[in-house]
Amino acid sequence: MNSNFSSQQVQDIGEQGLLERLQRFCPSEIIGDDAAVLVTAPEQSLVVTTDVLIDGVHFSNLTTSPEDAGWRAAAANLSDLAAMGASPLGITVGLGLPGEVRVSWVERLYQGITECLQKYNTSIVGGDVVRSPVTTLAITAFGQVSPYRIIRRSAAVIGDAIVVTGVHGASHAGLELLLHPQLGQSLKDVERMALTRAHQRPQPRLDVLPILCKILASPSPIPIAGMDSSDGLADAIIQICRASGVGAVLERRQISMPAAFDHWLTEEQALAYALYGGEDFELVLCLPQKSALALVQHLGQDAAIVGNITPGSTVLLHDEQKKFPDQVLSLSQGFQHFSQ
Amino acid sequence: MNSNFSSQQVQDIGEQGLLERLQRFCPSEIIGDDAAVLVTAPEQSLVVTTDVLIDGVHFSNLTTSPEDAGWRAAAANLSDLAAMGASPLGITVGLGLPGEVRVSWVERLYQGITECLQKYNTSIVGGDVVRSPVTTLAITAFGQVSPYRIIRRSAAVIGDAIVVTGVHGASHAGLELLLHPQLGQSLKDVERMALTRAHQRPQPRLDVLPILCKILASPSPIPIAGMDSSDGLADAIIQICRASGVGAVLERRQISMPAAFDHWLTEEQALAYALYGGEDFELVLCLPQKSALALVQHLGQDAAIVGNITPGSTVLLHDEQKKFPDQVLSLSQGFQHFSQ
Repeated sequence: MNSNFSSQQVQDIGEQGLLERLQRFCPSEIIGDDAAVLVTAPEQSLVVTTDVLIDGVHFSNLTTSPEDAGWRAAAANLSDLAAMGASPLGITVGLGLPGEVRVSWVERLYQGITECLQKYNTSIVGGDVVRSPVTTLAITAFGQVSPYRIIRRSAAVIGDAIVVTGVHGASHAGLELLLHPQLGQSLKDVERMALTRAHQRPQPRLDVLPILCKILASPSPIPIAGMDSSDGLADAIIQICRASGVGAVLERRQISMPAAFDHWLTEEQALAYALYGGEDFELVLCLPQKSALALVQHLGQDAAIVGNITPGSTVLLHDEQKKFPDQVLSLSQGFQHFSQ
Repeated sequence: MNSNFSSQQVQDIGEQGLLERLQRFCPSEIIGDDAAVLVTAPEQSLVVTTDVLIDGVHFSNLTTSPEDAGWRAAAANLSDLAAMGASPLGITVGLGLPGEVRVSWVERLYQGITECLQKYNTSIVGGDVVRSPVTTLAITAFGQVSPYRIIRRSAAVIGDAIVVTGVHGASHAGLELLLHPQLGQSLKDVERMALTRAHQRPQPRLDVLPILCKILASPSPIPIAGMDSSDGLADAIIQICRASGVGAVLERRQISMPAAFDHWLTEEQALAYALYGGEDFELVLCLPQKSALALVQHLGQDAAIVGNITPGSTVLLHDEQKKFPDQVLSLSQGFQHFSQ
């Protein structure tokens, strides 16, 4: 666009570019994880995360009921807390609303938010409502964690196993089925419902935290690396590797996917949904092999060890059956897979 | 508008009406103060407050530089913390931006936010940036307070003195001078600058908290009632009286105002600015007479005891010089004073 620096616009550098530019205004120690960590007491850290959602960009009445929009917004924020190892204390909800929005729409949105929060024993603890030309939802979630239990992206070490807490690809598949109902003729009704449900009512994996505590209850705490897979499984693994200065090998056939993919999608399509679909809100954790095995056993069949942390900086997708050649994963592949 | 309940729109009940309707989704114990209080540890409470600001509604490039918009947004949230007795831990900033907004505008906004935060030893600890058709700023501030030091609106008791921590009316006067530069010809340059500065760079009264702690350091903690005067001094006193189930007598000539008002505004105009102008971000505190006197002495000349808490529910404006008759204050008077 314009080469004059002072007239550079947000669209010239994008939201991500702007966020990076704005990091100089924040303390450096709080940057780079799913949420910020603040020490409030000797044995307690406060974890804070915030999301802004805009009508037409992040949700739409065309594909999402207000209840589901509310649930998804709450779930995304709770997932950021889970990704840090933190238990929720509450959320605040800031709303910008055009005057012609129906009160019942707002109440249904709040219904969805509170349904999600209640499931995880937390609640809305504050808010603001203002007039705006566009419906805007700003959620801030905060939680607490013992400083020894914080999960950070930067803590992965060579030899760690990479664990996913559940299937990937279901949320994106659900969205595709909602947008294009003619798709997935081979799916049973129950499968179709499960996939759309995965998109409409994602489950933040706060249930994993007490299991992690139990497994890792040793005299010296083991640092765990991890984040959630809100932006896709590939993104999560790449981000963890970047932050930790390591590489990874991902075993293609170990990635858990919905069983329905077998008789609906090609192998390549299924893998693309799982790696790049996003919004599954599972946790991707790196921990020693023995602990990883114990965690997967506790979590049940959809959890899996999907790879290992390696030296270097490459994230390699490997096929143990040698049907597909090794492939280096990068963040740009996700956009290619889903661009029109 | 439409009498059908389900088609009722936000504009039919207003933002305040909607907020009240939405309170049923929140735990009842957190409603009704400047911020929510959550107990996180035996000797520690977390205080959280959130604000959403929309371009053209809450700030505008026509009257406010991006630095000032940032400062004011941060100050308003820190003031909510001060109003609860809490020291700031940090804020999160959620931004919605049209693509054509200049990057330099956003950086100047952040500059203003961080200048304000630095003054109070706190910082931005998280954020989100998304594309939006309208510039939107969502700030959540959180702080901590000992449970014995929480300032609540509902704690005023009959006989308490009402203390203001500084002058009222300056911010509104500053706004008027910015909007109508032809006003205030009788003002000296230094007075004009001080008034516009009061509007552009309000000072949240976090400095009052350690003084309060010192004065009230007694074996049994004295509960203090109070809030900030962000919506006007009259509003603050009426809200405290409502929440505490008491009345008040306010002494007209005790209300501290900028000295410049004497040779610029009529007595009635000056009083309207002070009572209903808003955005002065002073604290309005109710405490026993002896403590009130000590507090005013510590704070200096602009602080004052402006009245007393009385039985009943009426907030009476009294003139000790009997020049004006007693007047009952109500929230609707503010709107009358400043409606066109």
